[in-house]
Amino acid sequence: MNILRILLIFIPVSFIAEYMGAPQTAMFILSALAIIPLAGLMGEATEEISFYSGPRVGGFLNATFGNATELIISFFAMKAGLFDVVKASIAGSVIGNILLVLGASMLIGGLKFKRQTFNQQATEISSSMLLFAVIGLTIPAIFTHTVAPELLTTRYEGLSILVAVIMFSIYLLSLVFSFFTHRDIYSVDHSQESAAKWSLSRGILVLVIATIFIGVESEIFVGAVEPMSEAFGLSELFVGIILVPIIGNAAEHSTAIVMAVKNQMDVAVEIAVGSSLQIILFVTPVLIFLSLLFSPMSIIFNEFELIALIFSVLIANRVANDGESNWMEGIQLIAVYAIIAGSFFIL
Amino acid sequence: MNILRILLIFIPVSFIAEYMGAPQTAMFILSALAIIPLAGLMGEATEEISFYSGPRVGGFLNATFGNATELIISFFAMKAGLFDVVKASIAGSVIGNILLVLGASMLIGGLKFKRQTFNQQATEISSSMLLFAVIGLTIPAIFTHTVAPELLTTRYEGLSILVAVIMFSIYLLSLVFSFFTHRDIYSVDHSQESAAKWSLSRGILVLVIATIFIGVESEIFVGAVEPMSEAFGLSELFVGIILVPIIGNAAEHSTAIVMAVKNQMDVAVEIAVGSSLQIILFVTPVLIFLSLLFSPMSIIFNEFELIALIFSVLIANRVANDGESNWMEGIQLIAVYAIIAGSFFIL
Amino acid sequence: MNILRILLIFIPVSFIAEYMGAPQTAMFILSALAIIPLAGLMGEATEEISFYSGPRVGGFLNATFGNATELIISFFAMKAGLFDVVKASIAGSVIGNILLVLGASMLIGGLKFKRQTFNQQATEISSSMLLFAVIGLTIPAIFTHTVAPELLTTRYEGLSILVAVIMFSIYLLSLVFSFFTHRDIYSVDHSQESAAKWSLSRGILVLVIATIFIGVESEIFVGAVEPMSEAFGLSELFVGIILVPIIGNAAEHSTAIVMAVKNQMDVAVEIAVGSSLQIILFVTPVLIFLSLLFSPMSIIFNEFELIALIFSVLIANRVANDGESNWMEGIQLIAVYAIIAGSFFIL
Repeated sequence: MNILRILLIFIPVSFIAEYMGAPQTAMFILSALAIIPLAGLMGEATEEISFYSGPRVGGFLNATFGNATELIISFFAMKAGLFDVVKASIAGSVIGNILLVLGASMLIGGLKFKRQTFNQQATEISSSMLLFAVIGLTIPAIFTHTVAPELLTTRYEGLSILVAVIMFSIYLLSLVFSFFTHRDIYSVDHSQESAAKWSLSRGILVLVIATIFIGVESEIFVGAVEPMSEAFGLSELFVGIILVPIIGNAAEHSTAIVMAVKNQMDVAVEIAVGSSLQIILFVTPVLIFLSLLFSPMSIIFNEFELIALIFSVLIANRVANDGESNWMEGIQLIAVYAIIAGSFFIL
Repeated sequence: MNILRILLIFIPVSFIAEYMGAPQTAMFILSALAIIPLAGLMGEATEEISFYSGPRVGGFLNATFGNATELIISFFAMKAGLFDVVKASIAGSVIGNILLVLGASMLIGGLKFKRQTFNQQATEISSSMLLFAVIGLTIPAIFTHTVAPELLTTRYEGLSILVAVIMFSIYLLSLVFSFFTHRDIYSVDHSQESAAKWSLSRGILVLVIATIFIGVESEIFVGAVEPMSEAFGLSELFVGIILVPIIGNAAEHSTAIVMAVKNQMDVAVEIAVGSSLQIILFVTPVLIFLSLLFSPMSIIFNEFELIALIFSVLIANRVANDGESNWMEGIQLIAVYAIIAGSFFIL
Repeated sequence: MNILRILLIFIPVSFIAEYMGAPQTAMFILSALAIIPLAGLMGEATEEISFYSGPRVGGFLNATFGNATELIISFFAMKAGLFDVVKASIAGSVIGNILLVLGASMLIGGLKFKRQTFNQQATEISSSMLLFAVIGLTIPAIFTHTVAPELLTTRYEGLSILVAVIMFSIYLLSLVFSFFTHRDIYSVDHSQESAAKWSLSRGILVLVIATIFIGVESEIFVGAVEPMSEAFGLSELFVGIILVPIIGNAAEHSTAIVMAVKNQMDVAVEIAVGSSLQIILFVTPVLIFLSLLFSPMSIIFNEFELIALIFSVLIANRVANDGESNWMEGIQLIAVYAIIAGSFFIL
């Protein structure tokens, strides 16, 4: 964490640069560098708060605040009308969590331990939910792509809202499932991994301050996306699906890898799969609801995103199936991610 | 069952209405209301006959007569030249059985029992067969959609007949498999669930009479589909894939849910998966063979149906995999169904 | 094996026929008949060498030489500019191994034994690798098909090379995985199945000679493909995806079925899945690297091949999942293959 803390220097640096009218390319890099430690701080604060409020409420907080970065970045992108970047970053977050976060955890953990096992039952429930969620999320898009464009009227915004309502209801019901009716499945023993380093009030303070700063930096970051991608000849799709999620998922990446190295593969898998689930069931519907304030955003992903999403979820289900991991599985996940990223970069 | 029996009143009502030249919209609703209790009676009669002829022969009868409603409805639709409605209702039956029948069973059963388990081995065999069957069924369609339309000649009717012959052969061989060589896998103990309420002759009589009446009502129903869908502005696809199968599957719905509430999830899963299997391996080839008497019907589903079929079968395989269910799984299945139905309705 | 040996007579027959300028149709059949026993001899020689060099090195040799036929046939086809035939035969080999080789093994083995079990852990690792490999292999193609053709520049040859480099690296790392870090998983006990019939030097001699002759016959075979398919009105795609792989996989077919009849289903499954894996991770990248010597071959499969590949790999994962097989599973795999072959033939 100490290395990440050093990057906090980029918060004042980025403010000064913005004030002095630095070129957008510089602002893109500076704000990204400032967001990384802020995301890490938010994750740390959530973990500390969890210590006081108990693992169950803590899990909920972690689940809700963990994706706050993505939600905030996406909100500002949506406000700026960059709908394609928002949808690309939703797809990219899911793909990145499953392929890159999980792959890196399995590879690095697998270099230390020959075989790592995880709670097969909990992972199967999460990965089943992920399969259902991705299928639900992609059906309207797939149907839309097979319909002649001239037949698509405004009615199809209604479809996005319907899906958002269903997804959000599933999210609320999943909280009932994991906090009340089936809480025994999810009772992962977190006692080994942490003890409170902070007081509760400090935890809440850090969380609030980090959220404010991340909001400001995100607005700078998104403002720089378009000129930056032009400057480097990168497609908006590549930026949205690869670069933005890597920054948005910084917290997940660091936590999952640390857990894997501690041989707590359970937690690493839950972070990757659970975070993906939450992006689909919570972040996406909330963004669609918020978009109604400006101009409605549809849930219709493009073919690239659909394919990448469906393949990722098939892989997650396969990985969850055997309940253990090794370095080779990690490399394969990263390899699939590299091929996807390479395709987006080249095409 | 008693509630269903009351609906039998709609048989004479629909006959009188038809005679008096009632509007097609009214005939659609009246014949649908008459079909529901008839389907229930057919299921009940088959179950009673099973008691006398033993579970093995009974299973075969149930498998053959259980989908009689669909076969009869589809036959009259096919005779009326409504090929698209027929194919939509084949796809819709499979989707409805897997997502709606299974989902409702898991939800309602899951509200009463925290965890319900089912025979993993039998379900795995059924769901594997379903995967192979759906892949076999959809390959010609997918290939056809990627070929330029002008290249498609009459030769491609030959492909439908080839697939029908292969599917029907698999159906016959699956009977050899489950009745002779591997009968031990399927020896579900039905003793708890029923005792004969009827005599054998009464069972056969009810079955024959219900089949005759359902035939007549189906002809009325199909005759009213086209004007009805125009009157309500519903697409033929929506009617075929959502409304027709819900009526055709009325028997499966009621039986599966009753079994789930009795904590016999095994039977509920077998009804949903087995009925889907039979639609693909028996009903579909028989319809294609019969279509040769009028004008050949192809097996080429449209993209919507293909996607819904493939996703449903992936979900069925996933659900079968862990050998247990809970209310949350039921809700997710129903949610996917709702999104599919919503997409068909809106698009 | 003795029956196969008789076919060796077609080596001199094909040479004489080629010398006397026999029609291409005759040369196609004669060279195919000569390749079959040569492929069998190569397999046998590799197995004998394995006896001396130990199962681990033997496995590597078997893995490397087992697909030599395909590599040689494909190399000459590629040199002749028949890129579509090469890609079709790569896809066809994978499909044929999974559906036909595995299906025939399960059917013929299942007729003798009611249930055959196999090492679930090793099969799960192989079939997971196959899933990742096929997804990696198909992503560039799927992405390319969704991009408007005019946007595709020479940059997309770079994508093929990137994928080839990644696949080949995964291949090398998988050797490290199975020979060094996780060798215990793969320690199948081969002791029962064979004892050396040949001396080591005889084994090596047979291997080298068979490789030379198969090279010559392959050049004749490929030279006859185009005129032959015109003569019989067969599409190049059908020849490439169905006929060429059946000949190229002759060795795998015979070995896997023999193993299944000996109730060594483990070995049969490993041959089918392992051989498919090697075609994707070794043969395909090597062909792409070699193509740079003439004119670069892309890795972009057509839609037919993609669908058949993805479905095959889903089936392989399903089959691997339950760790046992029976005759019905074998029939279903063969039925899916028959529908694919029928579709390619008719369309």
